[in-house]
Amino acid sequence: MSSWSTSPSSPQRFGAPLIELDPGSDETLQRQIEAELRQAIRSGRLVPLSRLASTRTMAADLGVSRGTVAAAYDQLLAEGYLIARRGSGTVVSPTASSIAMSAVRATAAESLLKFDFRPSVPDLASFPRAAWMRSIRTALHALPDSELGYIDPAGTDALRNALARHLAVNRGVACVADDVMVVNGFAQGLSVFSHALSARGVTQVGMEDPGSFSSRDVIRTGGVEPVAIPVDGEGIDVDALARARLRAVLITPAHQYPLGVVLSPQRRQALIAWARNTDSLILEDDYDEQYRYDRKPVGALQALAPDRVVYAGSVSKTLAPALRLGWLVVGPDLRREMTVIRKHLDCSTPTLDQLALADLIERGDLDRHLRRTRKLYAQRRRALVDACARYLPEATLSGIAGGLHAVVSLPDGDEDEIVAAALRAGISLTGLRPFAIESTHPVSLVLGYGNLPAARIDSGIAALATVIARAPTVSVTDS
Amino acid sequence: MSSWSTSPSSPQRFGAPLIELDPGSDETLQRQIEAELRQAIRSGRLVPLSRLASTRTMAADLGVSRGTVAAAYDQLLAEGYLIARRGSGTVVSPTASSIAMSAVRATAAESLLKFDFRPSVPDLASFPRAAWMRSIRTALHALPDSELGYIDPAGTDALRNALARHLAVNRGVACVADDVMVVNGFAQGLSVFSHALSARGVTQVGMEDPGSFSSRDVIRTGGVEPVAIPVDGEGIDVDALARARLRAVLITPAHQYPLGVVLSPQRRQALIAWARNTDSLILEDDYDEQYRYDRKPVGALQALAPDRVVYAGSVSKTLAPALRLGWLVVGPDLRREMTVIRKHLDCSTPTLDQLALADLIERGDLDRHLRRTRKLYAQRRRALVDACARYLPEATLSGIAGGLHAVVSLPDGDEDEIVAAALRAGISLTGLRPFAIESTHPVSLVLGYGNLPAARIDSGIAALATVIARAPTVSVTDS
Repeated sequence: MSSWSTSPSSPQRFGAPLIELDPGSDETLQRQIEAELRQAIRSGRLVPLSRLASTRTMAADLGVSRGTVAAAYDQLLAEGYLIARRGSGTVVSPTASSIAMSAVRATAAESLLKFDFRPSVPDLASFPRAAWMRSIRTALHALPDSELGYIDPAGTDALRNALARHLAVNRGVACVADDVMVVNGFAQGLSVFSHALSARGVTQVGMEDPGSFSSRDVIRTGGVEPVAIPVDGEGIDVDALARARLRAVLITPAHQYPLGVVLSPQRRQALIAWARNTDSLILEDDYDEQYRYDRKPVGALQALAPDRVVYAGSVSKTLAPALRLGWLVVGPDLRREMTVIRKHLDCSTPTLDQLALADLIERGDLDRHLRRTRKLYAQRRRALVDACARYLPEATLSGIAGGLHAVVSLPDGDEDEIVAAALRAGISLTGLRPFAIESTHPVSLVLGYGNLPAARIDSGIAALATVIARAPTVSVTDS
Repeated sequence: MSSWSTSPSSPQRFGAPLIELDPGSDETLQRQIEAELRQAIRSGRLVPLSRLASTRTMAADLGVSRGTVAAAYDQLLAEGYLIARRGSGTVVSPTASSIAMSAVRATAAESLLKFDFRPSVPDLASFPRAAWMRSIRTALHALPDSELGYIDPAGTDALRNALARHLAVNRGVACVADDVMVVNGFAQGLSVFSHALSARGVTQVGMEDPGSFSSRDVIRTGGVEPVAIPVDGEGIDVDALARARLRAVLITPAHQYPLGVVLSPQRRQALIAWARNTDSLILEDDYDEQYRYDRKPVGALQALAPDRVVYAGSVSKTLAPALRLGWLVVGPDLRREMTVIRKHLDCSTPTLDQLALADLIERGDLDRHLRRTRKLYAQRRRALVDACARYLPEATLSGIAGGLHAVVSLPDGDEDEIVAAALRAGISLTGLRPFAIESTHPVSLVLGYGNLPAARIDSGIAALATVIARAPTVSVTDS
C-alpha cells in the first residue's frame, strides 16, 4: 500500500512514497520526514485536502517507528500544513500557502528592468556577505542572555563606542560614545528629530529646495511641516532661511541632495551663526559622506557647533539599505528627550544587528569595504561622465564631486515624459521635479550610478539618449 | 631592537614584541597583526601616544614583509587606533576608547540583581541560538542582491506568508499574507496605529485601566491621548467605553495586562457590536497569546470582525525582545495608510531578520520552541503558585491562567515602599500602581516569572516574604 492516498474529493493519486530518507544525514529521521512533507506541499505535489497515509502505514513503508511518523505529523499539524479531520485522518490543509510563488513573482518584475539608475542605492553585489555573517556569528556567540531582553534605546555600548571612533576619524565628528544614538537608518533619525521638535512646540522645519521628497514625508509624519529654502551654487541660502523665521533646518552640507552642491565655507559659518543667534537646531544629513572623488572630503558641519547640530548617518549608502542601521550624534541638551521619543517609537534597534556592525567596524572590515567600493564608484562615475559626453553631448552634468548620483540637465524636453518613456524602455530613473517644492529648474534627470557596473552605465546612457531623442520636445516653461 | 618603543611623554616601555603570529591560521598575516595591535590598544597594554616601531623594524622582528606591516598600520590609521605624527612616526591615538570597560560595567550592574521578577521578559536562556543562527545563514545565503536595497515597508513576502499561516493556526486569526504588516515589535505596531488615528483626526484612544504604562507613552508619541476605561473580572467595561464616546480602543483580550483577566464571551460580543455601531477601531494586543495553562486558549478577537480589529503580536514574549520583530494584521481599509506611515517612520524592518524569522517558522523551529517553553513556563507558574501559598499565605494570586506574570495582592502595606525595599534586597519587581490611570486597587505586586528558574522563584518569593514582613504596614487608603 502507498503512503499517499487521496481524499474522496481529490483526483490526484500518489503511487509511491515521495519521501526519501537519508540515514547518513545530520538531521533526525523525524525532521527529514517533516522537511519532505513540507516540500511536497509547497511544490504542489501534495494538493490541498490530499489524505496522508496513517502513521502505521507510513512508518511501515519508510521502515521507521510509528512514533517518529506521529511526531512529524504533529509538528506539521502545529505548523498548519496538515489538518486532522474526524473520520478521514490527516489531510493537507486547504490554506497551505505557496511561498515559492511569491518569490518567483518578485524576481520576474525585477528582471524587466534593464538599467536601474534610481539614486540612493549602493552596489548591492559588493555587500560583504562573508564578513557580515562572521560578525553576526561573533555577536551572537558573545551576547550574554541578559542582552536578549529590552536594552537601552540609545543603543549598545559596543556600537556606540565603535561609531564614535569611526565618525571622529572618518568625518571629523566631535563626539564620544555617549553622544551617539543608534537608529534604524536615517529615516528614523529624522523621524525622532521631527517628533522632538514637535514635542518642543516647533511646528515648522526648513528644508532644501530641491530636496529629498521622502524626508518631507518623514518630517510630516513626525508632526512638523517642512518649509522650502532655496539652494544655489553655494548650497542652502542662509539669508532666505533667516527670513523664514524658523527654529530648525534639515540640510545635506557635504553633497546637497539631489543637486550635489557642497555648502561653501562662508555659508557653513553663516548657518552656524544663524543657529546660535536664533537658538535654532540643525540636522545634518551626511548621507553619502564616504564618497568624494576629486578633492578632500569636507568635514562634518557638526564639529563647528556640536551643541547646535545633530549629525545623522547610516550604512544605507555604504553597506546596504536593507540592514536599517543608522546613527545620530546628539548633544547633551537634546539627548534625553530624543532617547525617550525613540523608545516610544519602537524601543530599540535589534541588538544582534547592532553588535554585528560594531564587530564589523572593530575588525576593520567596514573601512576595508569603504576603500574597495570607493574605487568602484570612482570607475562608475568616470563611466557616467564619459557616457554622457559621448551620447548626450548637449547635456550638462553636475553634482559629480561626490556621492553615488549626478544630475543631467537637458536643453529642452518634458521631464515627466522622458522619465515615463525611459521606464517603458526598461530604464528606471527620476526627474528633478519630484524633489522640487517651489523651485524651478531646467529639464533634469537624477541618475544613480552606484548599483550599475561601468559597462552597463555606458549601455544605459546610450539607451537613454535614444529615448530622449525620440521624446516629444516641450519647453519646460510650457509644463 | 624592540618592536614597541615609547613616545617621549610615555613612561611605558615594551621590551619584547607583543605580537604572536600563527602561520597555520586562516587569517592573513596582515589581519593577524591588525588584530594583535587592536587587542593591545584595547587592553591598555599599548597606552595612548605609545610610539610603534617603524614598519621596517616591525617587519624584521616578525619575519614578514615590510608591505604587510605597512598595510596593517594603514588599516589601523584608518580605523583611528593609530595616528601618524610628523617627526615621531606612528603612535597610538590619544582617544582610542576602551570598549572592554563598558562591557564590564554592564555585567557588574546586572549581577547585583538577585531575583528579577520584572514582567514581560521570557526565558532568555532558552533563546534558540543555534536555530536562529542557522536561519540567519539560510536567509543570507538565499537573499538576492536586489533585496539588500529598499524593500516593501509592509515586509517580505516570505515572512508575511509564514506569519499568515502561523497566526491562523495558532491564534485563529482570519488573514492572508496581504493582511500582514511586519513591524519592529509591538511598540512600533502601536505607534503606527496611533499615528494613523492621529492622521484620521482621531485625538483619543481608550485604554484599559490598569494597563501598560509604556503603551500610554507610545500612544502619546503618536499624537493621540489615552483615555482610561475600567477593567473588572470580565475584562474591559464596554458600557464605560461606549459612554466615553471614543472611536478607537487598545485592548489585551486574551490575558489582560497586567491583571490577567480573560475578556468574557459576552464582552467580546459587546465590544465588537460597539465597534460596528460607532464605526470604531480596536487594536488587539495579543502579547502573550502563546501561553495558556489550565484551559484552551481563547482565539483572537480579530476573527470576529477583521474589518474592525487590527491584530498585533511579536516575538518578544516567545523568542526575545532584542530581536524587535512583530506584526500587525490589518484589513484592506486601513492597510494603505498604515503602510505609508510605517514607511515614513523608518522604512522597513531589517530584511535579514525578517527572512530569518520566516525560515525559523518554516522549519518548524518556532513551534518546537513554543512547545518546549510552554512546559517550562507551566513549571515556573506552578513554582510561583506553590511559593506564594507557602511564604505569602495571606496574599491572593490572580491572573495566572496564562502568560508570563501574575498579580499578588496583599491584605495591607505600602506598595511603593515594598517595591523599593525589595529592590534594595536585590529583588526587582513592579507594583500595580504604575499601571493604574484612575483606578484604585489593593496593595499589589506584578510578578514576572518567565525569566527565573523554578528553584529561584521559590527562593525569590521567600526573600520577598521577608521584605514584606519587615515593610511598614500602611493601609492603601492612606497613600
